[in-house]
Amino acid sequence: MRENYWKVTQSGKAPKLNKPIFIEGLPGIGNVGKIAVDFLIDELKAKKLFEITSYTFPHSVFVNEDNLVELPVVEIFYRQFKNKSDVLLLGGDVQPIDEVSSYEFSDKILDLAQKQNVREIITLGGIGLSEIPKKPKVYCTGNSKKIVDAYKNDLVSNNLYGVVGPIVGVSGLLLGLASKRNINAVSLLAETYGHPMYLGIKGAKELLRVLESKFNYGIDLKKMSKEIIQVENELLKKTKEWLSEHVSSQAGATAKKQDTNYIG
Amino acid sequence: MRENYWKVTQSGKAPKLNKPIFIEGLPGIGNVGKIAVDFLIDELKAKKLFEITSYTFPHSVFVNEDNLVELPVVEIFYRQFKNKSDVLLLGGDVQPIDEVSSYEFSDKILDLAQKQNVREIITLGGIGLSEIPKKPKVYCTGNSKKIVDAYKNDLVSNNLYGVVGPIVGVSGLLLGLASKRNINAVSLLAETYGHPMYLGIKGAKELLRVLESKFNYGIDLKKMSKEIIQVENELLKKTKEWLSEHVSSQAGATAKKQDTNYIG
Amino acid sequence: MRENYWKVTQSGKAPKLNKPIFIEGLPGIGNVGKIAVDFLIDELKAKKLFEITSYTFPHSVFVNEDNLVELPVVEIFYRQFKNKSDVLLLGGDVQPIDEVSSYEFSDKILDLAQKQNVREIITLGGIGLSEIPKKPKVYCTGNSKKIVDAYKNDLVSNNLYGVVGPIVGVSGLLLGLASKRNINAVSLLAETYGHPMYLGIKGAKELLRVLESKFNYGIDLKKMSKEIIQVENELLKKTKEWLSEHVSSQAGATAKKQDTNYIG
Amino acid sequence: MRENYWKVTQSGKAPKLNKPIFIEGLPGIGNVGKIAVDFLIDELKAKKLFEITSYTFPHSVFVNEDNLVELPVVEIFYRQFKNKSDVLLLGGDVQPIDEVSSYEFSDKILDLAQKQNVREIITLGGIGLSEIPKKPKVYCTGNSKKIVDAYKNDLVSNNLYGVVGPIVGVSGLLLGLASKRNINAVSLLAETYGHPMYLGIKGAKELLRVLESKFNYGIDLKKMSKEIIQVENELLKKTKEWLSEHVSSQAGATAKKQDTNYIG
Repeated sequence: MRENYWKVTQSGKAPKLNKPIFIEGLPGIGNVGKIAVDFLIDELKAKKLFEITSYTFPHSVFVNEDNLVELPVVEIFYRQFKNKSDVLLLGGDVQPIDEVSSYEFSDKILDLAQKQNVREIITLGGIGLSEIPKKPKVYCTGNSKKIVDAYKNDLVSNNLYGVVGPIVGVSGLLLGLASKRNINAVSLLAETYGHPMYLGIKGAKELLRVLESKFNYGIDLKKMSKEIIQVENELLKKTKEWLSEHVSSQAGATAKKQDTNYIG
Repeated sequence: MRENYWKVTQSGKAPKLNKPIFIEGLPGIGNVGKIAVDFLIDELKAKKLFEITSYTFPHSVFVNEDNLVELPVVEIFYRQFKNKSDVLLLGGDVQPIDEVSSYEFSDKILDLAQKQNVREIITLGGIGLSEIPKKPKVYCTGNSKKIVDAYKNDLVSNNLYGVVGPIVGVSGLLLGLASKRNINAVSLLAETYGHPMYLGIKGAKELLRVLESKFNYGIDLKKMSKEIIQVENELLKKTKEWLSEHVSSQAGATAKKQDTNYIG
Repeated sequence: MRENYWKVTQSGKAPKLNKPIFIEGLPGIGNVGKIAVDFLIDELKAKKLFEITSYTFPHSVFVNEDNLVELPVVEIFYRQFKNKSDVLLLGGDVQPIDEVSSYEFSDKILDLAQKQNVREIITLGGIGLSEIPKKPKVYCTGNSKKIVDAYKNDLVSNNLYGVVGPIVGVSGLLLGLASKRNINAVSLLAETYGHPMYLGIKGAKELLRVLESKFNYGIDLKKMSKEIIQVENELLKKTKEWLSEHVSSQAGATAKKQDTNYIG
Repeated sequence: MRENYWKVTQSGKAPKLNKPIFIEGLPGIGNVGKIAVDFLIDELKAKKLFEITSYTFPHSVFVNEDNLVELPVVEIFYRQFKNKSDVLLLGGDVQPIDEVSSYEFSDKILDLAQKQNVREIITLGGIGLSEIPKKPKVYCTGNSKKIVDAYKNDLVSNNLYGVVGPIVGVSGLLLGLASKRNINAVSLLAETYGHPMYLGIKGAKELLRVLESKFNYGIDLKKMSKEIIQVENELLKKTKEWLSEHVSSQAGATAKKQDTNYIG
């Protein structure tokens, strides 16, 4: 681990969590994972626990609506419950893109999760199709038969073998690396359109439907309205511009072009 | 930090600076930041304090007009004043281009700035437009409401939100990373033409006009004449050739082609 | 060596091996080395000794036929014999692709081999031709005249000079680096078709024929039937998808397209 | 310095050298530096002192005419004289190609040179033209006025300013980095054809003519006959194949195509 490439800042005093569930949703195909986790953080009024910045993230800042700059960050939020498992939520602006950084980040996240006595890990991601799915299906895979069996039901198919290629990035690595630490981990993957400008709202909704049926968080899926979509659209523009920045070889800013996201 | 990738050499004895302002202007879009800082160093007869070389800079040397070679360097100059804040000026031939090097460089610069008890940081950069602006506007953003409010006036707009994408490179990172050290930092960005061969003299002049109105350095903007432009043109050729070198895969030198810079 | 980039996990108690032969066959041109070693592991009922994962391997997981995820791994198997040298077999899903990782991996493998008192090293690889060879020839080269002479016979030509360019990757580096440790090492290279989707079953068979004539393992080459080919085809899809993943810039999974491998 | 990326092996007992001249000639534009130094090593019957391998060199081996493999190496030779300065000669198969490796290698070389009390450093390189020069001119530049003045004469022009862009790679960096150690260093650059397959024999001859006029080594330039060219052609094929390997993404060997070098 290149320890000095990663900076974890804790927000306030750490809560005593009771064997929490850990749910990851970072930018990726169709951004279904990010959209679902951002919605959960909002709905559950989750509190920030950690902020992670990294020398491997885009070397740029974003101008927010207060006209102030922000470094790209990944954040971990938590929410405590009385009658069910507490939850940790991992969301953010970016995820590492090269091999070593992606492995390091995933191991770093597992270190943090283990310190919180995490019970099991759920990663959320997309399955990129070549066209927009009318009713996106949700599949699951995991690092043990036990956890996969616990998540498959009439909303979720586990017949993923032969359906998809490798699961790239943090959503995949967290499962593989958790296995070496004997932590059960499952990935819920929703079908979505593989186009870089696509916002997979429908796919994210299906992921949330599965989580709600399992955990009864009381989240209101009908809230995924035009208004919510608008907010998410703004958040995702940040991600996209950070990523597209890599194409540019010149330091400085570039005037925005009007870009339209495909929302579905 | 890969400490051994960076070499900072101090020139002479360090002065005792009185809570200096730190102004950065490195090569970037339209090179407006570099042109403005190079002009300031010259006008203020600033003295060299630090020279920075790096294993992450181009692996090449340049032949100067004395037919001697020079490594690519970044330099920090200073100028002391009796009746106002001292100033530190960061200029140079290049800036780091990959993520990790850009973060490391920016943190290294902040280390040096903090040792000098820097009061606030101003980064200068360009906003690349798709055509040459007739009268370049200057915008500002920063890492606190306080400093942004202090810099916006009739010459400077702070309505940057939605106008530009991310601010890439050292001009952006210095703001984001300074925030974690509780140092106020602002970025002044002038509109310029986004073409790689463009010398944004007009944009640089607008940046200097803003600095002059704020600090009354007594710099003579009319001096940004053809003659000055010629000198700057030579300086920038160095930067461009160093950058274009990356395309070449063969060690050695290449005979110069006549290249014309767009000056404006 | 970036020690923390490599993780070696031992399976069970280490056997006491008697000056074993070490045979390497990882994915590469025509995959002849991988196919041959996978077949040997199976035929010899070899037992797993080490599993190697690395931060330099693809940052993704694969969904296996049990619908569970697997990290990309490289493995070392062993088989003990009563009347001949024991054997260590190195196979796996991937091999490192950049310079530093390839050198580090090879030195790491030699460390493990030396601890097992390895007697000599055999690497298996392909010589990519521009068309499918009818009867693939096998060539050998090595890091000492003694070992090359010991392997050349009527099945193997050592007239490799001028026939091929550099031997790229682990099959080549193991020879060069073993030389510095005074370990004899030889490379057996079978002609194969250089197309990325080609499964060089015929070339692998010729490599196995050479090994069988030398060591009399009692392996049944006729078993390299359609059925075996089908299994190997599945294994290799994993490798190919992991490699093609590098093209993708988005995290997540992608729905499989039907791809046909050329088998020969 | 990533010390473990570099391995320096000494050949035999170190001689006591008397303030030697250090001459570098590695592969690069037109390969004029490499050709000149290889010829010098041969003509002076220089003895090997150091062999350098590196994790940053191509991850492959070459099959030599004895059908044995060789790792890519860089070597330092020496020759002692009674009536003039001893000489150290740096030649090899490759030179590092990325920024950090090129800086590290150059600093490593300067460490070795300083331990031998090197008096001054001469790097040999090419100036790539867009066509084959009839009579290649030789230029010099350096890191001090003193050494440039010492080398310019009727065979060598020092009017290099404005003639070439940056001097890329080890030939340039050695000058820049030697300056920081107060070692005088000069670069002799011969015009040559910039095509990757070109062997700049004529340019190399002009470099040797300059060295001979300066040091009177008694080398016979007429020996740069067809025969010598043939040998050099073979040596350079190695370099070219190692470099072109980078294009290939598959491990293994590739059957040679008949390639013709342009010799001039």
